[in-house]
Amino acid sequence: MAKSSRNFDIEKTDGRDKTTIADAVAVEEPLEIQVMSSAPEAAAAKSVSITMRTPGNDEELAVGFLFTEGIVANRSQVLAVNAIGQADEVTGLRNTIRLEMSPDTELDLASLERHFYTTSSCGVCGKASLDALQVSGLQSLADIDTQFEADMLLGLPDRVRELQPVFVETGGLHAAAVFGPDGEIHVVREDVGRHNATDKVIGALLQAGEVPGHRLGLFVSGRASFELMQKALVAGIPLMAAVGAPSSLAVDTAREFGMTLVGFLRDGTFNIYAGGERIT
Amino acid sequence: MAKSSRNFDIEKTDGRDKTTIADAVAVEEPLEIQVMSSAPEAAAAKSVSITMRTPGNDEELAVGFLFTEGIVANRSQVLAVNAIGQADEVTGLRNTIRLEMSPDTELDLASLERHFYTTSSCGVCGKASLDALQVSGLQSLADIDTQFEADMLLGLPDRVRELQPVFVETGGLHAAAVFGPDGEIHVVREDVGRHNATDKVIGALLQAGEVPGHRLGLFVSGRASFELMQKALVAGIPLMAAVGAPSSLAVDTAREFGMTLVGFLRDGTFNIYAGGERIT
Repeated sequence: MAKSSRNFDIEKTDGRDKTTIADAVAVEEPLEIQVMSSAPEAAAAKSVSITMRTPGNDEELAVGFLFTEGIVANRSQVLAVNAIGQADEVTGLRNTIRLEMSPDTELDLASLERHFYTTSSCGVCGKASLDALQVSGLQSLADIDTQFEADMLLGLPDRVRELQPVFVETGGLHAAAVFGPDGEIHVVREDVGRHNATDKVIGALLQAGEVPGHRLGLFVSGRASFELMQKALVAGIPLMAAVGAPSSLAVDTAREFGMTLVGFLRDGTFNIYAGGERIT
Repeated sequence: MAKSSRNFDIEKTDGRDKTTIADAVAVEEPLEIQVMSSAPEAAAAKSVSITMRTPGNDEELAVGFLFTEGIVANRSQVLAVNAIGQADEVTGLRNTIRLEMSPDTELDLASLERHFYTTSSCGVCGKASLDALQVSGLQSLADIDTQFEADMLLGLPDRVRELQPVFVETGGLHAAAVFGPDGEIHVVREDVGRHNATDKVIGALLQAGEVPGHRLGLFVSGRASFELMQKALVAGIPLMAAVGAPSSLAVDTAREFGMTLVGFLRDGTFNIYAGGERIT
C-alpha cells in the first residue's frame, strides 16, 4: 500500500499562542512513466513523462495519462503495466511505471505536443487548440442523450468528500470521480494534482472496460480547465461537473464538442455553461 | 490591454428554478515562450514552452518562467522581450513571447528537465528532486534573518483579495503576491495557473531589479507544491505563505533549504511547517 500522507511536527498559531502538533501532509513524489514496445526489434523503454503525484493507483495514472494524451488508443494495446526501479528507502515506493505495448502499436509520442497546433488564422491561440482536438479525431458528443438530475448533481460534492480519506486527513488533495445518471459513484481518486486525479479515474475506467463513458459524468473538486475538458472528451464522458470556476477555453471546448459543463457546484446551486439539455 | 475575462450567457440553478445570466469567465489561452541568441552565428528562435495562461503580464510570465527554470540566470542576459505573431482576431492578443538573449549567453535548455535527477540510492524520487536543486547551485537561505509578524501574515489573504480584480469578477483565478516585512504588498498577479501567477510575480521582481528577494515573502492563494517552493528558492525569497495545504515535498524543500513555510493561512490561524524563527 502506497503511503499517501506523512506526519510532520509543526506549529499552529493564531498570532498569540503557538502549539506544536503532529500534522498529516499529502505526499508529493515524482512518477516517471515509460513505454516500450514488445516487438523483437523494438528500442529500449522510452521515458514519456515525469509528473509530481500522490502515490497510490500509479498504474491507473500511467494508463489514464497515456490514453488521454492520445498515445494509447485502447486498453488492448497495453500488454503489461509494471512498477519498476528501486524501492524508495523511506516509503517503499517504486516511482517508475513501465507500459509494455503490443508489437503492432505505433508509439506516436509526438501527439503529446499536438494540443497546441498553430493555425494560419491566429498562430498560437485557443481556437487552434480546439482545432487540434478535431484534427486528432475526437468526435462531438452532442448525440449522447444521457441525462442527469440537478438534485443528484447538487449532492455530489458532499458525497465525494466522504470518499476522500486522504483529503480528510491532510486537507491537501484534489479529487476526481465518475458517476452514473442514478448518482452512483463508480470511482473516486485523489492526488495533489487535478490532472493526475482525473487521469487516475479515467485509467481506472479504461482498465475496467468502461470507456467510452457515454453514460457517465466526471466530477472534479477544483476548477475546469481546457486540459480537463479534453481528458473527459477523450474518455467519451459527456458531462463535467466542477466545484470551482471554468476557464473560457473550457467553455469553448464544451460548446464545440457538445458536452455539458457545470461549474461552481457548491452551496446548493450551480452554473450551466454548456449543454443544459442533459440536466433535468 | 489584454482581456483577462470574457462574458458568456449561462444558466444558474438551485435545482428548481433556472435563470439565464451573463457570467464573466477567466480567459485561458496558450502562450508560447521562445528564446533566441543575438549572436551573429546563432540559430533561429527556439520554442521552450507552451503554457495555458490568463493573458496579461505575459512578458513577466516569460521572463519569470525562464528565470525560475534556470534558463535565464539574470536580467542583464535578456536584451529584449517582444510579443510577436499574429494578433488573435477576437482578443487582439499576441500569444508568443520571444526573448532575445545577449550573445555570450549559453542557452542551457536541458535545465528544464534537471529537476528530476535520478540517484543511485532511490532512482526517481523526492530526495533526488531535492538533490537536483543542490546540484543546480541553489544555496540555503538559512542565514537570511528577515522577520515577519504573525498578525501581518494573518491579514494577507483579505488584502491580496482586494487587489485581484479579475478574481472578484470571475471567481476563477489564482493569485501570487510578494510583500515586505512591513506588510507592504509589492506585486500581485493573477492567472488560471498557480505556477503562472508565481512566475509573473517573480518576473516582475526580476524586471525591477528586486531579485534576490531576501527581504520579501511570497503569498499564494492555493496550495504549496515542490515547484512553487523551488521558484521561491530560485528568487531568494525566504518565506512562502500559502492559503492551502503544503505537500510533503514542499515541507522537505523548505527544511532542506532553510526556508519558512506557512500553510492553511486562513480563518485567523496558520500552520508553520518550517523556519518558525522568522515569524514574530
